[in-house]
Amino acid sequence: MAQSGRADSPERWIVSADDVESIALGAGVLGTGGGGNPYLGKLRLWEHIKRGRSPMVVSPAQVPDDARISTVGEMGAPTVGIERLPQDFEMFGAVDTLERHIRAKISYVISGEIGGSNSLSALLVSAQSGRIAVDGDGMGRAFPELQMNTFSINGVPLMPMAQCDVRGQTHIIAHVLDAKWSERIARSVAVQMGGSAGTARAIGGADMKRAAVWHTVSLAKRIGEVVRQARESRADPAVAVVEMMHGLVLFRGKIVDVTRRTTAGFARGQVRIRSHSGGDLLEIDIQNENLIARRDGEVIAAVPDLITLVTEDDGEPVGTEVLRYGLRVAVLGMPCTPQLRTENALRIVGPRAFGYDLDYTPMAGAWPGHVN
Amino acid sequence: MAQSGRADSPERWIVSADDVESIALGAGVLGTGGGGNPYLGKLRLWEHIKRGRSPMVVSPAQVPDDARISTVGEMGAPTVGIERLPQDFEMFGAVDTLERHIRAKISYVISGEIGGSNSLSALLVSAQSGRIAVDGDGMGRAFPELQMNTFSINGVPLMPMAQCDVRGQTHIIAHVLDAKWSERIARSVAVQMGGSAGTARAIGGADMKRAAVWHTVSLAKRIGEVVRQARESRADPAVAVVEMMHGLVLFRGKIVDVTRRTTAGFARGQVRIRSHSGGDLLEIDIQNENLIARRDGEVIAAVPDLITLVTEDDGEPVGTEVLRYGLRVAVLGMPCTPQLRTENALRIVGPRAFGYDLDYTPMAGAWPGHVN
Repeated sequence: MAQSGRADSPERWIVSADDVESIALGAGVLGTGGGGNPYLGKLRLWEHIKRGRSPMVVSPAQVPDDARISTVGEMGAPTVGIERLPQDFEMFGAVDTLERHIRAKISYVISGEIGGSNSLSALLVSAQSGRIAVDGDGMGRAFPELQMNTFSINGVPLMPMAQCDVRGQTHIIAHVLDAKWSERIARSVAVQMGGSAGTARAIGGADMKRAAVWHTVSLAKRIGEVVRQARESRADPAVAVVEMMHGLVLFRGKIVDVTRRTTAGFARGQVRIRSHSGGDLLEIDIQNENLIARRDGEVIAAVPDLITLVTEDDGEPVGTEVLRYGLRVAVLGMPCTPQLRTENALRIVGPRAFGYDLDYTPMAGAWPGHVN
Repeated sequence: MAQSGRADSPERWIVSADDVESIALGAGVLGTGGGGNPYLGKLRLWEHIKRGRSPMVVSPAQVPDDARISTVGEMGAPTVGIERLPQDFEMFGAVDTLERHIRAKISYVISGEIGGSNSLSALLVSAQSGRIAVDGDGMGRAFPELQMNTFSINGVPLMPMAQCDVRGQTHIIAHVLDAKWSERIARSVAVQMGGSAGTARAIGGADMKRAAVWHTVSLAKRIGEVVRQARESRADPAVAVVEMMHGLVLFRGKIVDVTRRTTAGFARGQVRIRSHSGGDLLEIDIQNENLIARRDGEVIAAVPDLITLVTEDDGEPVGTEVLRYGLRVAVLGMPCTPQLRTENALRIVGPRAFGYDLDYTPMAGAWPGHVN
């Protein structure tokens, strides 16, 4: 049932090991530097598939309006994710805790963000617990904070919320005024829990269908397939990706400086890239994800549009946690889903939400995915 | 049914406005500077009693082994409590949240600590919700951290735990490895919630009866009555209290220096008191409560024994949040319950648990309250 290169998406499919390879790669591109490296999740999914526990994915259209759904993901700085490996149970542990708390069966899971390792979250929980993964997410990319998603933007509360840590410790945010309060409380607990925690948030079927970014698992898979095809045909993967994503290669060069600290549950900092000719400088500001790109001081791309670094030779996405001096990269700029460009959305995910005194100028080009 | 001056305690009583006056005063003495000022709680209880909603108190002996009980209290630095008044619903909001989470009726409440404002916590929840308050607590004094109580000392988990803030936001710690983890997580949530939160923790009847410090509400009442009688008869309240408590007046003098900061959810610092003759100096270290008293550099009293400042003129207990230059005080040293002097207990509430390289030498004298 797998497909590639087509803009439409299947209604229901069983995820293969090859699909996982593509999804993980595409999710790195959509991750805009954040969301954590999908490598470990990929290995775990391969193991599940090998043992006959393949994830099942369905289009949001297939989910009943009255279904109980949980968003799933790992909360924490990507820099923590590479130093302390998550166990295999945090996310479904969080879903199980949520299920017990709301006293209702949760049959569907959806990744909170399609960027980075969290793209595989719903697939992992599907493989582990038999729940069905939804082909979509709440961002169409990765974002550093919990309230930065299309559910919250659309006024869907995502409550209650449960977290589970590597020790199996669990807590529940039963009632908060808004998603920013969820973020504050959950982040502070995740920091106490060692910097990361599996996270599950309740949402109903109708709300999910209305507010999710649809078919982003399929989109990640198509991006991954495009990169792999480019590698095989010795084409330029960066160019292949931006063609498919209706974006631009913003810059090519070598990383000459990385400032990064892990603080208050986030990786924050800046990366500087010198063009190969040496004449131009690109600077990117980071809060887990790449937020703002400035070429010679001038802003050329800004959140919520996607700014992703890939290695120049093989188009491998570079997470903010593995930025290092000397790496030769292409910087991709890609349009975000129109769901993130509304006035409501920009208040939550626009440059000013990240503390920049900067109006958002949408990047040219249209989101290549489904628009619901 | 109220009684005074007797060491035994009634099995069941209805709390009068006069009882509340005495309990609040006695709880200030048992609070060792912490637990917050009971003044506001006293006014609220008076209002409830005036409207016919008097709290009911029973001896632990009256509680069925299979009863569901919640410890109750306000978590936060006492310095926060005087700058942001709690609403009236945080504690019973936390108990209600806990009740819904465990899906069982909670008919009894017990104050987590008898010191300071939290002495009135169970009485307030009793008045507000008709639950029955237990005559006892988990400390026989006040302590700054959640794991510092006779339940945790006796291996009773106090889980799950619920918190409710002034905005009605609620949080549940469903499962943690030990009480120190509860403290870490709950404290960080309370800090996010603005520095304080109503707190409710589940315990069963049999465990409560085995591990609580019994009859400390009655004890607080008796202390308060002794102070009031001394005031009326123009006797020295400080002397009257230590006689009843089998303690000592450690020092008399004037506060000459207060260092105090509110950090990470605690009020920490030091107070220095100069004797009236000017020859001697008493220094007391603080973490919400008074921990260690040094006279001219030599330790003369240490946690878990009780160190309480009262005003010299009328024996009013002085909380660490209202210490100020020029105040004339008597420093009382009083023996703690033997439940806090076991090897197990000292690991959790002895000087070393607070970071002091200091062996605990028990103060002379025996706890005047019930020993179970």
